[in-house]
Order: sequence, then structure tokens, then C-alpha cells
Amino acid sequence: MALMTGEQYIESIRKLKMEVYMFGERVENPVDDPILRPSLNSVRMTYDLAQDPQYAELMTVISPYTGEKINRFAHIHQNTEDLKNKVKMQRLCGQKTAACFQRCVGMDAFNAVFSTTFEIDKKYGTKYHENFKKFMNYCADKDLTVDGAMTDPKGDRSKAPHAQEDPDLYLRVVETREDGIVVRGAKAHQTGIINSHEVIVMPTISMGPDDKEFAVSFAVPVDSEGILMIIGRQSCDTRKQEGSELDVGNSEFGGVEALVIFDDVFVPNERIFMNGETEFSGIMVERFAGYHRQSYGGCKVGVGDVLIGAAAVAADYNGAAKASAVKDKLIEMTHLNETLYCCGIACSTEGYPTESGAYMIDLLLANVCKQNVTRFPYEIVRLAEDIAGGLMVTAPSEKDLRDEKIGKYVDKYFRGVADVSTENRLRILRLIENLALGTAAVGYRTESMHGAGSPQAQRIMIARQGNLGFKKELAKSIAKIKE
Amino acid sequence: MALMTGEQYIESIRKLKMEVYMFGERVENPVDDPILRPSLNSVRMTYDLAQDPQYAELMTVISPYTGEKINRFAHIHQNTEDLKNKVKMQRLCGQKTAACFQRCVGMDAFNAVFSTTFEIDKKYGTKYHENFKKFMNYCADKDLTVDGAMTDPKGDRSKAPHAQEDPDLYLRVVETREDGIVVRGAKAHQTGIINSHEVIVMPTISMGPDDKEFAVSFAVPVDSEGILMIIGRQSCDTRKQEGSELDVGNSEFGGVEALVIFDDVFVPNERIFMNGETEFSGIMVERFAGYHRQSYGGCKVGVGDVLIGAAAVAADYNGAAKASAVKDKLIEMTHLNETLYCCGIACSTEGYPTESGAYMIDLLLANVCKQNVTRFPYEIVRLAEDIAGGLMVTAPSEKDLRDEKIGKYVDKYFRGVADVSTENRLRILRLIENLALGTAAVGYRTESMHGAGSPQAQRIMIARQGNLGFKKELAKSIAKIKE
Amino acid sequence: MALMTGEQYIESIRKLKMEVYMFGERVENPVDDPILRPSLNSVRMTYDLAQDPQYAELMTVISPYTGEKINRFAHIHQNTEDLKNKVKMQRLCGQKTAACFQRCVGMDAFNAVFSTTFEIDKKYGTKYHENFKKFMNYCADKDLTVDGAMTDPKGDRSKAPHAQEDPDLYLRVVETREDGIVVRGAKAHQTGIINSHEVIVMPTISMGPDDKEFAVSFAVPVDSEGILMIIGRQSCDTRKQEGSELDVGNSEFGGVEALVIFDDVFVPNERIFMNGETEFSGIMVERFAGYHRQSYGGCKVGVGDVLIGAAAVAADYNGAAKASAVKDKLIEMTHLNETLYCCGIACSTEGYPTESGAYMIDLLLANVCKQNVTRFPYEIVRLAEDIAGGLMVTAPSEKDLRDEKIGKYVDKYFRGVADVSTENRLRILRLIENLALGTAAVGYRTESMHGAGSPQAQRIMIARQGNLGFKKELAKSIAKIKE
Amino acid sequence: MALMTGEQYIESIRKLKMEVYMFGERVENPVDDPILRPSLNSVRMTYDLAQDPQYAELMTVISPYTGEKINRFAHIHQNTEDLKNKVKMQRLCGQKTAACFQRCVGMDAFNAVFSTTFEIDKKYGTKYHENFKKFMNYCADKDLTVDGAMTDPKGDRSKAPHAQEDPDLYLRVVETREDGIVVRGAKAHQTGIINSHEVIVMPTISMGPDDKEFAVSFAVPVDSEGILMIIGRQSCDTRKQEGSELDVGNSEFGGVEALVIFDDVFVPNERIFMNGETEFSGIMVERFAGYHRQSYGGCKVGVGDVLIGAAAVAADYNGAAKASAVKDKLIEMTHLNETLYCCGIACSTEGYPTESGAYMIDLLLANVCKQNVTRFPYEIVRLAEDIAGGLMVTAPSEKDLRDEKIGKYVDKYFRGVADVSTENRLRILRLIENLALGTAAVGYRTESMHGAGSPQAQRIMIARQGNLGFKKELAKSIAKIKE
Repeated sequence: MALMTGEQYIESIRKLKMEVYMFGERVENPVDDPILRPSLNSVRMTYDLAQDPQYAELMTVISPYTGEKINRFAHIHQNTEDLKNKVKMQRLCGQKTAACFQRCVGMDAFNAVFSTTFEIDKKYGTKYHENFKKFMNYCADKDLTVDGAMTDPKGDRSKAPHAQEDPDLYLRVVETREDGIVVRGAKAHQTGIINSHEVIVMPTISMGPDDKEFAVSFAVPVDSEGILMIIGRQSCDTRKQEGSELDVGNSEFGGVEALVIFDDVFVPNERIFMNGETEFSGIMVERFAGYHRQSYGGCKVGVGDVLIGAAAVAADYNGAAKASAVKDKLIEMTHLNETLYCCGIACSTEGYPTESGAYMIDLLLANVCKQNVTRFPYEIVRLAEDIAGGLMVTAPSEKDLRDEKIGKYVDKYFRGVADVSTENRLRILRLIENLALGTAAVGYRTESMHGAGSPQAQRIMIARQGNLGFKKELAKSIAKIKE
Repeated sequence: MALMTGEQYIESIRKLKMEVYMFGERVENPVDDPILRPSLNSVRMTYDLAQDPQYAELMTVISPYTGEKINRFAHIHQNTEDLKNKVKMQRLCGQKTAACFQRCVGMDAFNAVFSTTFEIDKKYGTKYHENFKKFMNYCADKDLTVDGAMTDPKGDRSKAPHAQEDPDLYLRVVETREDGIVVRGAKAHQTGIINSHEVIVMPTISMGPDDKEFAVSFAVPVDSEGILMIIGRQSCDTRKQEGSELDVGNSEFGGVEALVIFDDVFVPNERIFMNGETEFSGIMVERFAGYHRQSYGGCKVGVGDVLIGAAAVAADYNGAAKASAVKDKLIEMTHLNETLYCCGIACSTEGYPTESGAYMIDLLLANVCKQNVTRFPYEIVRLAEDIAGGLMVTAPSEKDLRDEKIGKYVDKYFRGVADVSTENRLRILRLIENLALGTAAVGYRTESMHGAGSPQAQRIMIARQGNLGFKKELAKSIAKIKE
Repeated sequence: MALMTGEQYIESIRKLKMEVYMFGERVENPVDDPILRPSLNSVRMTYDLAQDPQYAELMTVISPYTGEKINRFAHIHQNTEDLKNKVKMQRLCGQKTAACFQRCVGMDAFNAVFSTTFEIDKKYGTKYHENFKKFMNYCADKDLTVDGAMTDPKGDRSKAPHAQEDPDLYLRVVETREDGIVVRGAKAHQTGIINSHEVIVMPTISMGPDDKEFAVSFAVPVDSEGILMIIGRQSCDTRKQEGSELDVGNSEFGGVEALVIFDDVFVPNERIFMNGETEFSGIMVERFAGYHRQSYGGCKVGVGDVLIGAAAVAADYNGAAKASAVKDKLIEMTHLNETLYCCGIACSTEGYPTESGAYMIDLLLANVCKQNVTRFPYEIVRLAEDIAGGLMVTAPSEKDLRDEKIGKYVDKYFRGVADVSTENRLRILRLIENLALGTAAVGYRTESMHGAGSPQAQRIMIARQGNLGFKKELAKSIAKIKE
Repeated sequence: MALMTGEQYIESIRKLKMEVYMFGERVENPVDDPILRPSLNSVRMTYDLAQDPQYAELMTVISPYTGEKINRFAHIHQNTEDLKNKVKMQRLCGQKTAACFQRCVGMDAFNAVFSTTFEIDKKYGTKYHENFKKFMNYCADKDLTVDGAMTDPKGDRSKAPHAQEDPDLYLRVVETREDGIVVRGAKAHQTGIINSHEVIVMPTISMGPDDKEFAVSFAVPVDSEGILMIIGRQSCDTRKQEGSELDVGNSEFGGVEALVIFDDVFVPNERIFMNGETEFSGIMVERFAGYHRQSYGGCKVGVGDVLIGAAAVAADYNGAAKASAVKDKLIEMTHLNETLYCCGIACSTEGYPTESGAYMIDLLLANVCKQNVTRFPYEIVRLAEDIAGGLMVTAPSEKDLRDEKIGKYVDKYFRGVADVSTENRLRILRLIENLALGTAAVGYRTESMHGAGSPQAQRIMIARQGNLGFKKELAKSIAKIKE
């Protein structure tokens, strides 16, 4: 089946009967909602680029399972080149949207579930891998967008799933039927859910024997009965309702997050990928998180490219571009951004095959990658704010600029170099504001911090993967220590 | 005359006939506008605290010029103790508002203009100092709030005032009459202007002989004919119009910035403090900027105290407070915040008297102070976002929480530790959001960067004040170099 | 009695019969040993400066206890001005020696023991304070240098004093006689011990009831029977034996560290300041450490001044001084160095009186000061190495420069700007090497890290002093949280 | 011809008649000199590892030019896998020596000269490439170590080569004969020269038409007539003469730097690779520097592995290994070290073929790699010093430990956990000292700063390679700016 065009994708989402809530009301038409639409456009970019001959090679692959051309977002990595191309594709999408394009979680879930189900089956003789492959090829064939849902609300962080006062704070199986299971719980911070056709659910942490009911993985359509989504507020969200292209900074693209509630949702047997095999919970989490930590070495770098460019334009527009301090800050921003890219690339090329044949990234380096992502975008933003100047946060609204009486003052007094229009100067500053403080800051800052696991999660993995014992032996050998 | 109560202050502002614009429309009643009111409340706090016996000693002084009790914000620093108390007062106000309370610029302008006019008069036999003292005592006596307006729009940064294509991009004298002067131009990023009774205008940079018309300082009431104010957009500004106390994070306090336009405003002779004495322009700027760079070692520290506290509460509320990584981050935040305070205190205690008797801060240390302020609040925010978790930017609206149908899900799934209400958890996260990304981020981040001069301005001063020649001699002496 | 001249000081040390070991041999004449002499010269500077009219006001005070003029190093701080002057004196001494001048530990011990003994006596009716005052006035009167010895070897860091396999790893009372006690143990890393007349011993950590025998404080002459000192190796120590003024970088001044062993040393009753009052052990430690953490905001800043100057001279000498990147690095070095100074000053001016009348520094800010000292000197060194260039570590020896055959090559090829001699260029680079990698790096880097307590010790104090509860209340109040 | 064993290599160096000077005297037998020998051992490791079956695949390749098995250090990179393996080989050698193993400069020179000569010949019809291939295959065949010499003394940094007062401050052609050229000048900071058989000379900067005589590249044996080497002093160099294995920290391996003087050295025509083609000077420099900046993403990472291991052992030995602060610092060290590795790997896998077929690394990422190397090792060292504790710089000499009288005190008081010998504890601390302050700090710190170009050189390249124009277009497109 052919890949969808962007337009076809939009229409396919329009057909879904999702139950979406925002500001205490049901959103009847999410596709055309001004707050939600930019996030849909970001996903659409993954379809449009796949249709564009200039990018087709990067955006599409021939499925090794069906022989059909599929979107790379639906691909199982067959080698390190695939892993590297994933990162490059993500940088490209970031450059084109300056936002989160959301489709990575599905790709990362595909790859994590693929290899983990293979290993569960090998141990238990279950049929999860077959279930999953069927589901996966269906999605790839129909060119669907899939959400990968991992993060449970978690409640009290000092307690295990089964020890929570409310057991639903980790998603769990509440009923087992002959033809399937019924699940209850929620997944928080789901970036792409409202723009997806399907959702893959995975557990969120390593589990012990007492957590059996929580060790569950499956996939269902996002408009399944019992699924509700509640949209999270972003900084400056309602500015998108005002109808000003200028004031929002990035009028076309964005991201959006939702709490997804599974209020006793039925999952048929053939859509189950794990059910009680607690010792595989941690493995699935580690792999999904690992792939997703790699992802950030691509997507955030692409967004960083836009921000660096925006800061450079802002300097051009106020006549400061030649100051050595400004040039040096742009160099530093570039340096930090490319360091992230190095990490994204390196954990890819150092990947290795799992038993299933799917390629894993190097876990140590992927965690190092993400750890840097929790730091450098913040410094890049800080430097962008430095270059942009205070006007970024004190400029009046577009309505002021367009106003018959006061527009002339805005135009006169906020002009930088004489031959650039005040409007263009404000446009670039609003874009920086959008990434530094506005709707996109949620993705570029906070998601860089917590997406794919908070910083401490990476530190734990770095400790575990760092092979300290080997390093101690090196040191003892050089120091000629005999114990 | 007695100090005003907070309520009297509000009413005194209500009486002014300011010309304020926002979103392309004139704001008829700024005092009760939901977007503007929190910033008025912040200034009000400087009146309320002066009435509070617990803080009266810090907030008020006996004027050495009138013998009356006045608000410290109207005081000329008589010694280093005064300078230190200024910083402590600012920290207190920051703690009580978690926002910019705006009245410092007037205080800093008072002190800069006081000593500079003294020196101009000494050289030229002018009467500026007398003019200024009269004005100052009038303000102190009536307990007025005064804006100190320095930053011109500046246009093309690579060109001097007189070389701009539009000469009005630096405020200037366009007409000289017998009874006064007429000025035209604008001052940008004016934080407290709409909550002030009077405004002191100062030049914004050192000037050369060609910039004579731009070397002007004076004071006028903010509702003088020809003065217009256009409110700048802040991140999340319109959220304040929604009527949700919860969603705004800090429902009572805030700051606001405006472009102030002087469209041929008349200034009577007795209100002029500088007019063409170009060689004193740089001195006035340096002193105002110096005092204001000191200020940030107080006010931003106070806001930082709130943010540190909020992060600690957020950790309490999700059960992570005992994790060593969380504790360590709170220590780091405290460490950085107190380092800023050290700088604020040190530049105060190392102050020295000017010829006028008014005390200056140590310029080197004040610039070091501000330079740190352009860095540490960003890192404090980053750490706060780390501790807060992703929910800070993905939590639904208060309307969702209150909704009959979906409210129960929000309440259930966003609960942290069982005995804290979800509402309280959301309240603290919204406060962090407010400081990290929302309206208060404009003050805590971007203003920390650019207020009182952008980072490069401090570096230039550090180079100038660092006495490198003396340090070279020390080194040569130790190395026994004879040249 | 009159203050000693530098020369008199040297001769007074020469008279002591210290038992000093180095390289496995007893040093018969430490005063004239080329490795040890520079450290003696550094202490001597504290005598010379006190004689210098230019510095006498800073270096000396009238004792409030005897009415005599004494060296400030023997002074009990009577107010915050004294605390501030201490820091200024230390910066001066650092500038004059580019090394550790060692006399601070005695001053800090004086002040810590003064107030603590006052409080022990108050509780227990003991006579420690009287003992101490007598000792102190004796030292002040005779203008003696006193070592303050705190750091025990500590053995296994995971165990308390009484739980160590070898009980002597914390210094302890091994015998109690009618006329005094006998102590055994050691104090490590004693910087000034071999240049001191007396040593004050203090416990090194908070102690519990089981650690009674370790809670001991006293003073004895450094040449008491049973005291041995073993000199620690410094980087490049033996270079000082070569006789090259050039190669050592700083030929006149230095520091030196020793392990001091108390091999059953008798302490007469009148020299005991604590003996078993375990609950005061932590207080004494906290105060000594607090004062000493303040100290680093002075002494290391002075050394930093020399290093900044040296880097600037190096840039002058190779023609790079006008490059904007070089200038910017010098600014950054200055900025970091002055930030340290701000911390030293601020913890002083925020000091408060103890019950004894002696002034304490602000403990929170003093710990913040030291925490910064564990970071910034490293970055200052890094920047100095950046500016200095590789020649700093690859330059040939002075012997090569002076050699008849190859000297001409060294002179020719290591010349920078044509009018500066290669010798002078090498001199300044060797000074930087000395501070970055050589003998002085021990003081400027590692001592900055561990002196007065390792970084983690400060973090614990910052947590304890940071008043997180108050900050949480601020945040809850702003967020309108009611619990 | 077979690869040499380590022993054969040593003997082959012994046969050379190099003219080496140190401390003003000629070193008659450099191979057995205690100061120089460790650096020879480091190079030897590149021979030993090639003989070791465990590492042979990484250390050797089949030459695509001769079909013979050669050491990878003599290889021209044929693809990105080769580039990556280079980095892995370097990390391995760093792990095995904890020092600079010196042979990389030859490899990097090989690859830079290979492709540049190809392009010169293409333009000018010269025979440089043929000359070079012949030389290269000779070296590969005989398994020789080759120094790549680039850095001229440079004199006054503010002046071009031809504008220096002494024209010899950049190496240049002083005579052209029929059979060759005569060159004069020097190359500074040559790490491996005294352990090499041959030296390749390259120009050190981009040159203009006036610098024709300086645009010269060639190779000669290191014992050619007219070549003199003067050894640079390292921190703690003479400690190696004392005969203590313990005190030197790393008794077997090290690095050493020399000034190499070309005092009218004759170069036969067939050994000339560039002579006056000034426009290729910058290209050769950029490529050599690029390869060498990549190298640091391997070798310094290997040394970092040892340092991390040593810090961990130090913590084990004093009982602090389980403290969360210690564990966290080891994680941070690992994180920083692996970030460098990511950069080394990424610039390799993103390499591309030159016209000659030889593969270049990605220049932007290689410069990003080196820029990080100028920062992270300093922080890794700082953290190692933090974990190691003060004893690292205050421990007595081995002679003290072995002394009959005082040895027992050293043994007693410097014991950490009871079951580890004091000797072993001192060994690991001395290793850390060696890397932090001692001979190896020259390589791990200062060489990380300046080797392959000082930080500012990388920043210039990052600016040049960062494609800011493309990024500006991205931003304008998102902001919908039409100019």
C-alpha cells in the first residue's frame, strides 16, 4: 500500500473518534483546533518529507519483512547505518518544524518491543513476537502514526507499583478474559497521542514478582472505547487562539502533550506483547529508553539549528552581528549543538544486533547523549536570549504593530538596522521567544530534561554501563599494584 | 507627610491619567486590568512592608535632607550600611512577591542623578543638583513611586546616536524654550512605568561631542502630555485573563514591561538634571547601571529563594525529597543563589563616598555581581525543572481539574504522595512553571540577562575596573622579571 | 613586647629543635633547606608586611586583651570590620607571595577555640577559656606563629573514630596524669607546622559519646618531645634543589605540608582546651572550618591576582594581548576571582558575635565561599594554561638557555615579541607552570579543593544552613497552598 | 617485511645518532636515560600491541598500496571504518600507557600529506604525491615511527611569517640546490621526535603569497645532519631519576617534548612534498589538524579511563566508595570521558573521501571534538583530585615509607581501609598525582589544551564549518520572514 501524503494523513486522523478534552470541555474537532493543529502539522511533516524526492532516501526504506517501501518511522533497524539514518532523519525533521514531530516514540517502541518479544517468546514459548510483527507490518503498510506510551503517573516516587495507595497509578491488567484482557491506568506526558492512529503501551520501570499485573504491553487504536485524553497546558498555549501569525513565533508547527486514560480498555489477545513476564519489563524499558535517548541526539539538534539561526538573524537585524562577543556566542551554541549530534551519531554507529536481528544502540553512549541533552539546550537557549536582547520579552503584540494610532510608534522605535522591517525583526524575536519560553520551550527545554527519562535515570545507566571494574584494573596495572 | 499605605498607593495610581495601550487598544483602567494588576501589587508590597512593624526598620529611613521618615526606596545611601540594607530590602521584596517589584529603578536613578548633578554643577555652575534635590524630596515626602528610564531603543547597534538613520532612536531635545525643553524619543523595557507617579529620564550610553542633543536627563509625571505607554507581551500574559488562580502559578504578583514614548513632551527648567553636558552622560550611566547591577544581587536572590522552596515542595509532594540526587540539586541551587547574594553584599560593603556625599557601590564587584546574575538564575531554573518533573509543563488546566466528568481522572492520576491534594501539587508546579517559562520568567531569566545592561556590558566594565596593570606588576615581581 | 621583624622571625624558628624528616632522612637545618626555605619566606612575609608602614594598619591591631600592638594573625575578631580586614590582609599576603603563607590556621584556631572554650566553661565550669587566653596572649605578645592542626589521618572513611581498627588514626588521649595528659596520633596535611613556634590541636569531626578520648584540644610547642614531622612531596619539589631561579617560577615563596606525629606527647593541664566534652567537638570543628573557609576568599584571591597578571604578561610577551579571545579570557579569570572575593567579604560583613564576644562569620556564606574555591581556581588555571600556550610545559631548562652551544637556539626560537628577552618570557611561563602544575599548584589547586574541608563537607553545611523550611513557606504562600 | 617487535623497535632507535640535549648537556644514550625512557616505552606499546593476537586486528591492516601487513599507524584511511578503528586503537593505547604514545602525529601527517600532495600535483603537475607514497611505503614496510612536525615557534603572534623580525621563527627554505633544498628553523613541542626514525615537516598556518619560502613540506631521518633536539622540562621530570617506582606514579610510561632545530638541513628532492605552493599550506594544516583533533577523541579518552579507574580505586582504599557523592563524581567523570569518545567516533563515521581516495574526517565534528578536549579533561582531573583527597599532594616519599625509623609512622598513619597496604594506597594516589600535576599532566592537561591547535583555532574552524547561512534560512522559513 502506498505511503500517505500529508493531506491523506490529516484526513485519516480526522476520521478517528478520539475522546479529547481541553479546558474542561470535549474537543469535538481536534484536527482543526488552533491550539492542537500545529502539533498535527509537525507529524504531517514526516509524511510530506517522505514524499519529497530530495529526502525520500532518508525518509523511507524497503521493509525487510514485507518488501514494501515504508516510512522509516515504521522501520526495524537492520544495521548501524539504519541507526545513523534515524538520527539524521530526526535532525532533518527538527530543522523543518522547530518542534517535536512526535513520531519517534512509535519507532522507538517498535524496535524495543520487536527484540524484547523475541526474547520473551524464546524463554516462555509465547506468541508475542508474532503478534507484534503482525501489528507492526499492519501499521507500516498503512503508514500509520503510532504512539509509544511508557510513562505512568507513578504517584509516590518512593514506592513500587504494587505499594501505591491507588494501584491504578501504574497501568495494570484488571481483568483477564478468554479473548483478551482489560486494562486500567494512565500514561502521562504523551506527546503524539492525539495525532496517532494506534498506541503501543509498555511498562515504565523494572518490576519485581509483586508487580506482575503491571508488566503488560499491548497496542490498541487510539479511539478504542475507554480511552480518554486530557490535553496539558503549555506556556502560551492560548496565544495560538488569537489568530496572530507573528505573535506565536512558529505559527505552523508545535507539539502537544496529553494525559491518556485507559478506563477499563479491552485488549484482544493478538494485540498483547507482554503479560506478566516481570523480568522482561526492565529490558523493554531499557531498550525503549535507550532508543529514545539516542533520538534526542537528532531531533533536538535540528531544533537547535533553527534556534542558532534565529539568534544569528536577530543579531543581523540589530546591527550587532559583527561584534566578536556575538560571534563567539554563536560558535559556542554551534559547538554545543554539534556535541549533541556527535553523541547521537556515536551511539548509533556503535550499535549491535539483538537476538531478533534488530539493532540496538550502544546503551552507554545513548545515555551519555541524553545526559548532555539535559544540559546543552538550556545553555543554547541562554545564549540565544543573550544575543536576542530584552526586546524578545517586551515587544508589544501584533495588534499594536498593526494599530492605526500606535502602530507607527512600534514600527519606528523597534526598528533595528534601517533596511529591515520592524515586522521581520519582531518575527525572529518571537521565534526565539517561542523556543525559549513559549509553547516550543516545553519541547526544547523541559522535554529535553525529562523525555526518555530524567537526568538521574541516565546517571544510573552510565554507572551500570561504565565498566568501572575494567577501569580500576587499568589503573592498578599502570600503578603496578598487586593485591 | 506620612508614608502611604498599600491601599493609598493603589488609589493614588488610579488617579493618574496615563495613556496606556495593550493589544492595539487603550487600557482605560490599568489598575484593575487582570494582566496589569499583579505588577501593581508587586509595587504595593513595597508600601505594605514599610507599614509592617516587622520590616519597618529595613524598609524605612529618616531622610538626612528633610528629617522625615521616608521609604528606603526614596533614600540616598549615606554609608555602606545603607547600601547593604538596600540589598536586604530587595531580597525581602523578592521573597514576598516572587516577581519584579519595580521600585528599585527609581532608587537607583535617585542615587545616580544625585551625585552626578553635584559634579556637573561643580564644573559648570549649573543648578541641576538643586533641581534634583527638590524633586527628590518632593517624591520622598509624598512617598511616590518613580521610574528610572534609561534604555533607548538604540536602532542599529553598530552606530552612535547621532549616526542613526532615525535620530529619535535615542531620546533627544528637539526644542529649547525659555521655560524648558521639548523632548522626543522612547525608552524601552520600562518595568515599573505604569505603576509609577513620576519618571526620571537618563541617557543610555557614553556620548561624544556630536551627541549633545541626546545628553539629557529630567523628570516628569508619567501622565504628562505626550507620554504614551505600550505594554509588552509576556509569555502566558493572557492566562491572567482566564480567572484561574491555580493556572497562573503566582496569582497575586508579577511584573510588566512597556515601551514609553515621549512624543514631544515638555520639561520645565526646574525638572532638568542634565542638558548637553555629554562628558557626564557616561558617568550617569555607569552609576545608575552600577547601582542597578548591585540591586540584582538582592531582588533575584529573593525570587530564587521562592523557586528553591517551590522545588523542594514539589519533591515533597511526589515522594522524591529523600533521594540524594534531589537533595544535592537543592544544595546546588542554594549555593548558586547565595553566591549571588555574596556579590550583592560585597559590592555594597566595599562602597565609597562620592563628592556629593552619596555612597557608590564598588563598581568592579557590582559588575561581577550582575555577570553572575546573567548565569546562575538560568542554572537554578534548570535544576528546578529537573526536580519538578515533566508534569510542570503537561498538567491540564484548572478547568479540567474542576470538571465534573474528567476532574476525577485529573485528581486521581496526578496525585503524588497520597496525603497531599492534587490541587496543591499542581499549585506548586504552576508556580515553578511561572518562574521558568511563564510571566515571571521574563523577570527571573531575561531581565536577569539584560536588565541593567547585557552581559557584555559588564565584561567591558570588569576589564576596565580589573586593574590588570597592577596584577601584571605582582606577577613580574614574583617572577623576578626586570624589563 | 615588640613585633618581630622578618629576620627575627627566621632566627626564632632556627632556634627550635624540631624533628623534621624528608626523603627518609632527618633534616638537620630546615631553615636553610632549599626545599623548605620558600615556605618559611612566605610566613616571613606576614612579619615583613606588619613592619611596612604602607600595610601596618591592615596587618596589626591593638589587642583588646592586653592593649598591646599585635599582628592581626594573633587577633580575636571584635566586629565585622575585623573579619573583613582579615580577608583583605589575606589577599595582600597572597599577592605578595603567590603561595600559601600558612599563618591563617593559627588565627582561625585562635578564634574557634576562644569562643568554644568560653561555652564549654559556661556549661561545665571548666577553666579552658582562661587556659586558652593565657596561651593566646603569650603567643600574641611574643608574635609567634601558631599552627592550627585539625585533620586526622581518618583511616577508613566509613567508620567513626572509635570504630577504626587502629584507634590512633584519630588523635587521642592515651593517659591522664595529675599534671596533664599524654596524647597519641597524628595530624595530616599540616601546611605551616615546620614554620610555627606552637601548635594548637583540635578534633577533626563531630563526635559521639563513644569518642570521648578523641575529643581533645590543646597547644604545645612544635619541638615538644614526641613530635615528629614528615615532609610531604610536592610536585616539582626537588627542582628547588637545582639552584635555578628561573626554572622554579617562584624562587622565593612557597608552601610545604607535613604529617605531624604525636608519639605520646605530654600536655600540661594549663595547655588543655577541651578534654572529653564530645558535644563541643563538632562546634569547634564547625567554627574553625567556617573561619578557614572564609580565609580562602582572601588568600586564594591574592594568588589568583598573580596568576591573572602572569597570564596577561605572557600574552604581552607573545604578541597575543590584543586578540579579543585573550582579552575575554582575562576578563573571565578576573570575574571568577572577584566572585571568590565577594564571598570572602560577604561572609565577613554578615558575621555575628558569639557569647564570648568574638565574632563569627556567617556560616552559610563561608561555606558557599569555600565551595566556589573548590571550582573557580581550577577554571582560572585552565584559562591561564590556555593563554600561556604549550611552551609553559615544553620549555627547556635554564641550563639549556645558558649553555654555550645550545643556548643561542633556545634564545632565538623561544623569543616572542622581539623586544622582550626570551629569559623574561620563560620566567613568566615558569611562574604559570608553578601555579598550574608545580609546587604552588598544591596550594592553589588541591588545597583549594580540600583545605578547610573537602567540597562535600561544604555541601552538607549548605544544606544545614540553607533554611529550606523557610523557603518552602515562601513558595507555599505565593502559590496560595493551604495544607 | 615483518612488523618489528617492541624490542626490535627499541634497538632500532638505539642505532640512531640523534643529537639530543637536556639540562645543557648532550644526552649520549637517550634510550636508557631515566627521564626519556618512559616515553620510548609508550611508543613501544604500539609495537607490542600489534604483536598481541588479542589486539592484532585493531592494530594492523593490509596496506592497499603494497598488500603487506602494516601497523595501522602507517595506514592511509580507506573508509570510515578505518577512521573509527583509528580512534579505538588510540583509546586502547591510552588505556595501556596512561600517557601520550606519540605515534599518531606520524599517522595524521601521512594522511594529510597523502591527499594534499595528490591535489597539488593535480594542479601543478608536480611529483610530490609520488615522492610521498614512496616515502610512506618505505616507512610502513620497515615499520618505522614517524614524527609529524607542524608547530613553528611563531615568535610574535600578531605578525605573519614573513613579517617576523627573525625570519627563521617559521621554518623556511634558505637555499635551493639542484638535488634538493636547505631548510632552517625549528618545530616546537615535538612529542615523539626523539623516539622516531623519521620526521615529516609541514607548514603551521595558512600562508599568503609573501610567505612562499615558508610553504614547505618534506621528510628526513631524525638523525640528519643539522638536526638538534632540546628536551623540554616537564613537571616532576627529575623525579624519574630518583629510582623510585612508587613516587613517579607511572613508572613505565610517559611522554616527552622537544624543540627540534633544523640548522640548515639538506632535503633531497625526492623527499620534498610541498615547496612554495602557498595556497595548499592552509589545506595541509587544516587536514593534519583535523585528523589530530579527531585523535584526541581516542587517546585522551583512554588516559581518562585510567584516571577514572584510579579515582575509583582511591575511594575503595579509603572507604569512601559507597558515598553517593563519590559515586556521582565517578559517573560525571565517565559521562565527560564518553562524550569525548562520542565526538571522536562521530567525526570518523561522518568522514568522506578526498580526491586521492584517502578518507577525511568530518572537519566540523573533529573541531568540536578537540574543543571539548580542551575542557573536559580539566574537569575530570578536578573531580579526580576531589575524590583522591589531599593526601595525593602531601604524601611523603617512598624513602620515608621504607625508612627504618619513620617508615612505621608512614605506614600506620596513611593506611585507609585496614586490609589495603599503605603502599598500594600511595601507589594509586601517585598515579593520580602524575596525571593531575606530574609528568603526565603535561600530556593530559596542557596538550589537551594546545595539541593540534589551541582552543581558539577550533572556534575559528567551527565558525567556518558551522554553515550559519543555512541555519539562518531555516529560522527565516519557520518565522515566515520574507525579505
